[in-house]
Amino acid sequence: MIKIFGHKAPDTDSTGSPIIWAWYLNEIKKTPAQAILLGSPNMEADFVLRHWGLEKPAIIQEISPNEPIIIVDTNNPAELPTSVNDATILAIIDHHLLVGGLKSKNPIEVTMRPLACTATIMHDLIGVDLALAPPAIKGMMLSCILSDTLLFRSPTTTNHDRAVAEALAAELGVNMTDLADKMFAAKSDISAFSDAALLRMDSKEYQVADKKLRISVLETTSPNIVLERKLSLMQAMPLVAAEDGADQVLLFVVDILREEATLLVPNALVAEMARASFGALVTGDTVTLPGIMSRKKQIIPALKL
Amino acid sequence: MIKIFGHKAPDTDSTGSPIIWAWYLNEIKKTPAQAILLGSPNMEADFVLRHWGLEKPAIIQEISPNEPIIIVDTNNPAELPTSVNDATILAIIDHHLLVGGLKSKNPIEVTMRPLACTATIMHDLIGVDLALAPPAIKGMMLSCILSDTLLFRSPTTTNHDRAVAEALAAELGVNMTDLADKMFAAKSDISAFSDAALLRMDSKEYQVADKKLRISVLETTSPNIVLERKLSLMQAMPLVAAEDGADQVLLFVVDILREEATLLVPNALVAEMARASFGALVTGDTVTLPGIMSRKKQIIPALKL
Repeated sequence: MIKIFGHKAPDTDSTGSPIIWAWYLNEIKKTPAQAILLGSPNMEADFVLRHWGLEKPAIIQEISPNEPIIIVDTNNPAELPTSVNDATILAIIDHHLLVGGLKSKNPIEVTMRPLACTATIMHDLIGVDLALAPPAIKGMMLSCILSDTLLFRSPTTTNHDRAVAEALAAELGVNMTDLADKMFAAKSDISAFSDAALLRMDSKEYQVADKKLRISVLETTSPNIVLERKLSLMQAMPLVAAEDGADQVLLFVVDILREEATLLVPNALVAEMARASFGALVTGDTVTLPGIMSRKKQIIPALKL
Repeated sequence: MIKIFGHKAPDTDSTGSPIIWAWYLNEIKKTPAQAILLGSPNMEADFVLRHWGLEKPAIIQEISPNEPIIIVDTNNPAELPTSVNDATILAIIDHHLLVGGLKSKNPIEVTMRPLACTATIMHDLIGVDLALAPPAIKGMMLSCILSDTLLFRSPTTTNHDRAVAEALAAELGVNMTDLADKMFAAKSDISAFSDAALLRMDSKEYQVADKKLRISVLETTSPNIVLERKLSLMQAMPLVAAEDGADQVLLFVVDILREEATLLVPNALVAEMARASFGALVTGDTVTLPGIMSRKKQIIPALKL
């Protein structure tokens, strides 16, 4: 049985893409495969599973040696179990920048495309066989695209992502704005999460110069709900950084509707990074970064110390 | 202008695939691109270029920072200029195991497939547009497949590689056996090469336990021409290893027709590797390994210390 999974702290694409690919392998390729999760799905992904009537995949922490696996929506070992390179990687399907570090024991299938969403790549790989997919699979594909493009607002959006989403929505009779509103509202309901959980919810580790950074992004239609908690979030940062072996946590609160990010500025290091990376003048404990919505396209490439 | 290149010490696939992809980008995608080489093509690749009337690409050693590049037929930094990660990698098309180590600054296209030949992957990516290709491009594609599959004898051969080659040969009116015979004869003419040049001709660096190995494979229809030079080849090994920063050179002389390899055994380390890796009993300064033809599928996965 092949295990298919995305990154830790699964968002909608990392929850939905394994389900889509498991359907394709089981039903079309007649290859036994199982979608799994490397952690609890976020609130939006949880909503999307329920919305499309899909079962929540089992959550696991570690991979056994030589276990056959397919990795989707990441190629970054830091976002995967430490045991990943002892497993037998069969394929990688991803839309992030190439990080390096994953190794295979044999030639494998790797499909990376500069698209907004893993599900869009899967749409293309599945091709005409997608006609055989049940509505829930097509709906999950649509939700992945709406999520990763923030309803086509993110600069990662390509014409192809939009065209695929529009075709799926038309076929399913779904109003994309309505569905996206519900998804973003679910994601914005953060009341149940601790500060540490929020800092880790959609968080990726990157090295910038000599600093290991945990770069957290919270995409929300209600940034004030997060920013009201800014003091306790900043207090939680050193603890989260220490527990996760990072030098600093950066939290970008992305306002999906206003298309801007607010960076929390707990100390002089982050203030200097905001200045060096985004030309931002920091005067208080937050700074607004107009137009910044994408960690992949805008934050990671800009970050300097 | 995008530079497209394969690995150092270019064989037919690393010479031909950049030419095929440059044709596709220039003529179909209207994107200016140039095939280049990271060294002199081997004798077979040189023959193939002349056979199909294709111009020999320019040879370069280094890549400029931020230069846009496409890497084909390898994903191994050890087979590429050290400056490769400072360039702007736009795409990777390859059929080798995932080594890890290449990094991109932005999301890129990566297409790796467990096929025998990069040109077969390109055949699939180009799709119906291949009908627009001139015979020389289709002929180069065919020659790449014949070369990497050793006329379908190598265990790396898939049904798909064979089907693509057969369709191309039928369309071009080419007798594959005749063409392969000429290609392998060209590759077997090693008289012009020094011992050091032979040891580096089709050579890849791999780490096995704490040893850095330069694993050389000479595919030939006339193994005796190489084996007659075994003493001077073994004498040249320590010098080549020292110059290239390796601990040991391994030379496998692959007999394409008999489908076996002869490993030169210059010392106890190599004798022990032959025993541990292939269960071979070494009594002299060479050992025959029946059925061994592929570095990728058979030698690299087996190597132990």
